[in-house]
Amino acid sequence: MEINYQNIKVIGFDADDTLWVNETYFREAETDFAKLLSKYETPNKIDQELFKKEIDNLPIYGYGIKAFTLSMVESALELSNYNISSKNIEEILNIGKAMLSKPVELLDGVEEVLKSLSGKYRLILATKGDLLDQERKLEKSGLTNYFHHIEVLSDKKEENYSKLLRHLDINPSEFLMIGNSLKSDVLPLVNIKAHAIHVPFHTTWAHEEVTEEEKNGKAYKTISSLKDVLKLMT
Amino acid sequence: MEINYQNIKVIGFDADDTLWVNETYFREAETDFAKLLSKYETPNKIDQELFKKEIDNLPIYGYGIKAFTLSMVESALELSNYNISSKNIEEILNIGKAMLSKPVELLDGVEEVLKSLSGKYRLILATKGDLLDQERKLEKSGLTNYFHHIEVLSDKKEENYSKLLRHLDINPSEFLMIGNSLKSDVLPLVNIKAHAIHVPFHTTWAHEEVTEEEKNGKAYKTISSLKDVLKLMT
Repeated sequence: MEINYQNIKVIGFDADDTLWVNETYFREAETDFAKLLSKYETPNKIDQELFKKEIDNLPIYGYGIKAFTLSMVESALELSNYNISSKNIEEILNIGKAMLSKPVELLDGVEEVLKSLSGKYRLILATKGDLLDQERKLEKSGLTNYFHHIEVLSDKKEENYSKLLRHLDINPSEFLMIGNSLKSDVLPLVNIKAHAIHVPFHTTWAHEEVTEEEKNGKAYKTISSLKDVLKLMT
Repeated sequence: MEINYQNIKVIGFDADDTLWVNETYFREAETDFAKLLSKYETPNKIDQELFKKEIDNLPIYGYGIKAFTLSMVESALELSNYNISSKNIEEILNIGKAMLSKPVELLDGVEEVLKSLSGKYRLILATKGDLLDQERKLEKSGLTNYFHHIEVLSDKKEENYSKLLRHLDINPSEFLMIGNSLKSDVLPLVNIKAHAIHVPFHTTWAHEEVTEEEKNGKAYKTISSLKDVLKLMT
């Protein structure tokens, strides 16, 4: 399918795993969590149960590290049949706190791409998760000045994007979103007649995965490195 | 001090304890938490330690119920000298979950005031806390349509308000903020030359309290019920 980006005026960037490393820290935390509980269950069972708990809690806790920490504590109680020690609960809290203090590691080519595109387009950042944590990462990233607008969304569904575009007074056909998640950064945009480019990250949270059927016939491009955006847009 | 509101074009409302009940639920949760730990410490000591923990965790957890729940778990471990049972940890998680599912109880006169002012002014909602939780409460409140803009802030300091007003393209002299917290809804506004009206709620979190010196000579009005705004503004 031929896609052209001539009408694009505003480009939205996802942040976690698009501009900087994020999911890697969750994988590491899950490994630490499974080690703590290794006398009660297999790593695979622990991963599965924690994931189920996160999904069950999503409607009330939402996304982000605080939600993840609370789900780890709850899972630990159940997986250990309430035999886990208080010291281990403290270690779980500390896994969460360490995640909230991680350095921000920019992905390859991010500054070059933002610098190049910011001359020609209005750039916005559209992310989900904990408000304070996303602000912390943006500040640490040194990228704040490239963006005209920062939006932390409670979710990234079609209605969230439609509302954002109305609020920013942007026509969907003039908007391009760039991100690593088909489910959150690409398909909802295509569905509301905006544009999207998919830049996969090497690891994806199971909750963000989509079926072949959902992807079928949808007009978006996939690139292997963020730097390839420059070939498409300039 | 004579204050006139003739230049006001936009009115900002705080949400928690200004439009609907909030702090009451935290007080109830603290009481439940102290009961759970009653064999380890006195209620007063438990309250003090939990408050200290919340303040210590504020820079990484921020405001809101998830942060509060994590601080309760951490405090319980320490107050019990790591003797607390897993079942009690689960009960603490359930205190947090119950808070996240509370009904929204509007304060007296809220609908009447918003209805009356929305004809003449642009109204915005400016609140802090968990993004998802504030969206949930706003939706349950039935008040969404009165507001032109909803902003969930990670904090309510002068710089947060200055940024918000720039973003909304509002001159401080044209902006009036109404809320129950002197520290978060009133003094920062007065300090950036915007206007503010204080509507105290019967209970205030210790962290929101201010000294006489901070209040001294600051130009704001205090009213005892939100309905009194109508006498000042129309």
